[in-house]
Formats: sequence, structure tokens, C-alpha cells
Amino acid sequence: MIKKILIANRGEIAVRIIRACKELGIETVAIYSEADADSLHVQLADEAYCIGPANSRESYLNFTPIMSVANLTGVDAIHPGYGFLAENPDFAELCHKCNVTFIGPSVHAIQRMGTKDIARQTMEEAGVPIVPGTKGIIKSDQEALDFAEEIGYPVIVKATAGGGGKGIRVVRQQTELLKAIKVTEQEAEQAFGNPGVYLEKFIEDFSHVEIQILADNHGNVIHLGERDCTVQRRLQKLIEETPSPAIDQETRKRMGEASINAAKAVDYSGAGTIEFIFDKKTRDFYFMEMNTRIQVEHPVTEMVTGIDLIKEQIKIANDQHLEIKQTDVKFDGWAIECRINAEDPYRDFFPNPGEIELYLPPGGFGIRIDSAAYSGYKIPPYYDSMIAKLIAYGKTRDEAISRMKRALSEFYVEGIPTTIPFHQKVMEHPVFLSGDFNTKFLELYPIIDSPKDE
Amino acid sequence: MIKKILIANRGEIAVRIIRACKELGIETVAIYSEADADSLHVQLADEAYCIGPANSRESYLNFTPIMSVANLTGVDAIHPGYGFLAENPDFAELCHKCNVTFIGPSVHAIQRMGTKDIARQTMEEAGVPIVPGTKGIIKSDQEALDFAEEIGYPVIVKATAGGGGKGIRVVRQQTELLKAIKVTEQEAEQAFGNPGVYLEKFIEDFSHVEIQILADNHGNVIHLGERDCTVQRRLQKLIEETPSPAIDQETRKRMGEASINAAKAVDYSGAGTIEFIFDKKTRDFYFMEMNTRIQVEHPVTEMVTGIDLIKEQIKIANDQHLEIKQTDVKFDGWAIECRINAEDPYRDFFPNPGEIELYLPPGGFGIRIDSAAYSGYKIPPYYDSMIAKLIAYGKTRDEAISRMKRALSEFYVEGIPTTIPFHQKVMEHPVFLSGDFNTKFLELYPIIDSPKDE
Repeated sequence: MIKKILIANRGEIAVRIIRACKELGIETVAIYSEADADSLHVQLADEAYCIGPANSRESYLNFTPIMSVANLTGVDAIHPGYGFLAENPDFAELCHKCNVTFIGPSVHAIQRMGTKDIARQTMEEAGVPIVPGTKGIIKSDQEALDFAEEIGYPVIVKATAGGGGKGIRVVRQQTELLKAIKVTEQEAEQAFGNPGVYLEKFIEDFSHVEIQILADNHGNVIHLGERDCTVQRRLQKLIEETPSPAIDQETRKRMGEASINAAKAVDYSGAGTIEFIFDKKTRDFYFMEMNTRIQVEHPVTEMVTGIDLIKEQIKIANDQHLEIKQTDVKFDGWAIECRINAEDPYRDFFPNPGEIELYLPPGGFGIRIDSAAYSGYKIPPYYDSMIAKLIAYGKTRDEAISRMKRALSEFYVEGIPTTIPFHQKVMEHPVFLSGDFNTKFLELYPIIDSPKDE
Repeated sequence: MIKKILIANRGEIAVRIIRACKELGIETVAIYSEADADSLHVQLADEAYCIGPANSRESYLNFTPIMSVANLTGVDAIHPGYGFLAENPDFAELCHKCNVTFIGPSVHAIQRMGTKDIARQTMEEAGVPIVPGTKGIIKSDQEALDFAEEIGYPVIVKATAGGGGKGIRVVRQQTELLKAIKVTEQEAEQAFGNPGVYLEKFIEDFSHVEIQILADNHGNVIHLGERDCTVQRRLQKLIEETPSPAIDQETRKRMGEASINAAKAVDYSGAGTIEFIFDKKTRDFYFMEMNTRIQVEHPVTEMVTGIDLIKEQIKIANDQHLEIKQTDVKFDGWAIECRINAEDPYRDFFPNPGEIELYLPPGGFGIRIDSAAYSGYKIPPYYDSMIAKLIAYGKTRDEAISRMKRALSEFYVEGIPTTIPFHQKVMEHPVFLSGDFNTKFLELYPIIDSPKDE
């Protein structure tokens, strides 16, 4: 049985995991970079150790100090959160070698799904529809140019190791293609340690719908319904909700079944998400990618199902059987998440880290806050710019939206600009309210036009 | 239709009501005493007006300035919250005369239920069992002494206008009776403007179980299950939960039916609570009192039913029909509330208002905070000492308790002592964990013995 867990992450997801561990009576070990000494996850964990400088390659991505802390503190398992080492098969393998449970799927499943070109092949073999794309990693400039010519622009350059909106780039004309590939390769090397990229036809006008699945080590796989992450800006998710306003019950059923097949195709274990491109007109969906880890937007699923996904991850890592059967999963109400970032929506979402002078999150019925912020916290410039995930629950989409608006209006973050005004405008926007929008929503309807638009 | 509401209250309940109004698109008017200028409810309301000095008799209990603000701001309705004017029939009547909707039941229902000796008679007539007590208000010392002699000590002195743990006093021997009556009369005059007290047999060893009801103006009455408020200290509720660990399904059904009968007996309308003394051994229950208003502990009911009680109050005041039928009410999971007070549990819960230097409430899955506190807020010494209501939800009682423990451990309130350490000890206490305790729990098992016990 797992009695002590090292959390190989920072910020709100480290706090989220510590919370689940505390509720399960599991001891926690935090790690932190020199830039994160004052972070909340350091405060909340039972033990905390500095593992290196601010640069994540020397700290949060650095196997050696992390594994040293794991060994010295005698943890039974490591939870990688999302980003950083969450989908790194080499790290997962090192954990196994060191007799520490990696809280996630097998190395094999991470490799197949994390290597996005192989994931596409695997899905194709499992009968899950995929978007047209290169058969594997691009090996030459000419191959890329020829393929893009064949399927037609726009195309999307995707790092095979990418995720979380990083290592991904849309190309609209031939003259931009080779530069985009080069930049994406560099970014992917930097962020994920793997420069491989491939090409896909870019479908511009779709809904991003993803299915949460849970699988144990004993062959049981269930899905916990969908999340709609269609409100994106430059491929970064900003708002997520469940259920999806785009899909109907029949699509939900088909997508759920396809996701279970996808998970079974790689003997998946743990929590995972299959992301789909959903075409509203034809009601067709295509496999986009699988995230073999917990996702940023997992709370909306928790709010409507009542199931604690981090606890389930830990129970599965403990080799326990899933206690929840597919027929036990009940969906009640509607949940929406807004990502509150330290970015200035009036200056093209320019990241603006710095000191939060006053922090007072909203509260009350139907409001959940996942955050590592506090009054006086200095957001370091080295990592993502997230301040908080604000989740609103309601019996209906209308109630969830009205609650979100109320919560946004009382969320005090002083000292730095945030994306709160952006979210307030989305929550008032007739197209968002209608539920009938696609991934071009923010391009078609610029919510905040200029610094004067207030 | 109600478009603008004056909130005739302060603190967390004023914030709670403002939140519901915002979600319904209703404008809000706050009132505040000179001591409350920096209060959060003043910040959050659309408009706010000072109505008098700190002393509540000159501000929050003072009809004239409140009604002046109501008239000048053109509100359609007044929500009284709990305490202050919430159960004052004269104020409700004044509202009617001024053509302002009082969000609560009829003057008649407030009078009958608020005047606790009449409430007892009404319940007796409606077939709801009551505890032995004086037929009405005590009119002479001799009457009190004779009656107490007849039923035997201990007896309980109750202000007929009392509530919220105020205006209530246990007497264990004859020599204390007349003084207790006098002090209770004075306190009741001060707090409620009505000195009348009556006597009841004091049942020491029971569970406090109460039923939440909702009734519209069209004869529809439903109940939303029970709350268990057995963890009390000197008749002040400290921890509430639902469902009750004390009652079974059959008792729940009988108690629910009795409560609906009680409400119908006074043509009740709005949200109300019937409090019962429940004897675990015999499974008998007795009417204690009815609160004709929203209660402090209402959030636990909201967490397991998903029903927003403040919104329901407003819809009922709008003359709408209840949309929820009894068969629609589903109970899912378990919810516990801890009242976090500015009191020092190591010094006999001595109230200790002052400045909250740093305030960081817990968050994450299953946690709800109802509070008016913030970093830098000075709790005034004039009103109650509540800092926050911390509500934890879980699929089971065990999960709710483990979540509450986790949340208590990360609740930062710096600058003043709070009851957080007390709640932490209760959440670890084997008797509390067993669910098998009664109102003597804190007497039998002093959770915190002395200043040294840490």
C-alpha cells in the first residue's frame, strides 16, 4: 500500500495532489526549485526539498535530484501531475527501476500515446477515426513540403512529445512551413526533450471534446463523460465545461465507447483523456491525441460525477480494482472552469508575473477554487502563468454561467493584471451563451479588442 | 417580479444573499453600521448605505433607517438573513405596509412560531409531539418555582423570541432559577426586544435533528431532509452535518412528514426549519422550535441536494410555484459544516475579535467557504464572532470528515485565535467518528482541556 508520495510538480496541481493525499492519510513530499521556495505546495506538504535552480531543466525536469529525494525520503510512489515529467516514459521507467511506483500508466502506454505519430497509428488500428497526417515523424524538409502540398494548407505542426498547448503550430502557407517546423522542433526539444514533429491537416472549425477515462490494472475501463474545451486562444484552453453543449447523447455514447477501445488498445491503466475533434455538422469525431496523465481541466468532471480523480489515480496505482462500474457513473448538473492567468487581456494576453498584493478568491455555493496563490505571493516568471482555476457548478448551464459571473465579479487579485476581465466578457457573450461555437470563437469574436476596450 | 433587494444583515449571510441575488440578476442594496464600513458585504453589493452606530439596536435592529434606505433606493424586497430582524413580526408587518416584500413567511406564521410558547401549542394541536413545559410565558416567580418543582430539575429557560443559541439557559437547581430567568429576560429584551421567557423540561441526552422545509404561497410544501446539529457547546451549534448519523430512514420519513404538517399548520411560506429533540434509545422525537428564516447551517443541505435555498426563498417571495416536487429531491453524499469563530478554544472559547492579518481559506474539491473575511479585515467586537463557515462534502461521512480535516489543516487565519484547533480535534475524536454521540458530547469529552493542551 502507498503510504508516502513525492509530488514531482509545483503550483496548483501540486496542491491538488497534496490535498488528495491528505484525505487518504498518505504522507507527502514536495520538491521545489530555488524560485519556488515560497510556494504554497512547499507549505502544505509534510516535507519539502529544494531540487535545483529556477530553470525547469535543472529542477522539475531533472531526474537525478528528484529520484534522490524520493529514495532518501522513502516514498512509495511519485505523482507527476501534468506537464514536466508526467508523460516522460524514461522517467516512468526510472521509477520502476528504483522500485518507486509511478502514478500513471505503463511505460509502454506512455510511449505509444505520448509519441503522437505512433498514437495515431495505434488508434487507426483500434478503429478510432483519425485526421489525415504524416505517417510518422518528419524526416526531411522535402517530405514536409510535399505532404503539406498534398493535403493542402492550413496544416498543423505537432511535436510528437507535445502537450498542454506547447509544441504545436498552425501553418497557413508554404513559405511559413519550414520555419514553423524548426521553431516547433526547438520548442519541443526545450520543453519535452524530444524534437520530433509531424504534420496533420488543420481542421479549423470544430469543437474540442475529450473523454475522461479511468482504467485499473485488472482490465476494467470506464469513462466519466466528456469535457468541452472549445474556447481556446492560439491552441491554449481557456474555458472548459461539462457536459459539452455541442454533442448529443448518441455522440456521447459513441465517443465514450471509442475512448474505452482506445484505452484498451494500449492496456491503459490510470486516469487518461482522449481528445477528439468533433465536427458539429456531420457529427463525426476524429482522434486528436491522448493525454496519459491528469489534465488541468479535470475538476469539471469531478463536479458533475462526484468522483475524485486524483484519489482514483492513487487507488489504481495501489493495484486496487476500480470500485466504480460504468453504470454507477451518474452525471448531475453542469460545471465550467475558467483559467485565471497572470496575463494582461488588454495587451494581447502578455504574461505578467509579479507580486499578488491581495488575493481573495470567491466562495459560496457551487464554487471551487484550485490555486496555489495567496496574498503576498510572487508569481515567478519561469513557469506557467496560472493563478487559479475557478470552477462553477450549477444544476443547468445557465446556472453555472450565472454563478461563474458572480464569482468572477468578486475575485480580488490585486497587484498584477489577470484574465478575469476576459472571462467576464466571455460569460456575457451571446455566442458563448448560445453554446453554438467552435474553436474559431475567439478569432471571430475578439472579446477584448484593444487596451481601450474597457 | 423582484428586481432589487435590500439585505438587512451583515457578515457572511449578507454576502451569501448578495451572491444569490447576483446569480439571479437581482440588484442588491447593503446596509451597514459605522463599525462595518470596511465589511465585504458593503464591497460586494451594488449599493451600500450606513444606517447607524455600531450598537445593533441603533443600526441593524433599527426599523426607521432601514426602511428609509429601502424606500429611497426603490427596492422591491428585503431579505433579513438570520438573527437581527429575521423573525421580527413587527418588521415584517412594516414591510408589508411600505409595499416592500419581506422575504420570509407571513406575519401570522412568524408570530405563532417565533413566540415559542404559542409555537408549542400550535404543534401540539397539529399532532407533533412536544417536550413538557409551561403553558405560556412565565408570569410570576412563584409560577416558575412551582412548575420546575413539578417537572423536576434540570429545566431550561427559553426566551419566547429567542434563537440562534441566544436567550436560552439551563438551570440545574432551584437556587439558580430566578436569577437565570432574570438574566435571560434581560438578554432577550436586549437581543430581540421581547423579554418573555418560558420553562421546559431539559432533556440532556439527545440528538439535535432538524428538518429543512420549503413552502410556496400556493400550498406546496416539501422537505429537504435533516441536519444534525448535535455538536453544541453551551447550546451553541458548532458543527452540523447531513445526513444525521443518528436517525434511520423510517425516522427521517416520520420527521419529514411531521415537519410538513407543522408548516401547513401555520400556512407557512418560504424556507423554514423544524428543530427536534431526538431520543436515540426510543427513536422518539419532540418539537423543539421552528426557525422561520434561513439558518446558519443551511449550506450542508444545499451540498447534498444541489438546491440553492436562498434562490428558492427569493422565488417563493416572487409568488412563484415551487418547481421541485418531493420526489425530485435526491440526497447525494454527506456534508459537514464547521463554524470557524474568532474565539480562543484554549481560553474557554473567549471571543477574540481583532485584525485578521492573513486570511487564506482552503479550496479544492468538495470544499465550500461562506465568509465575509479577508486579509486585513478587522472583526468588530459588536456582533457575532464568526469568521467563516467551512463546509466539506464527500461521497460518504468518512470522505467528508477526511476532507474537512484536510481543509482545516490548510486554513490560514493569522492575527487572532480561532476555533480551527478545536474542530481539528473533534474531527479526530473516536466518539465523533463513530457517529454515536449526543448533545453532551463536548461535556463528556472535553476536546480541549486547558491552555496547555496542545
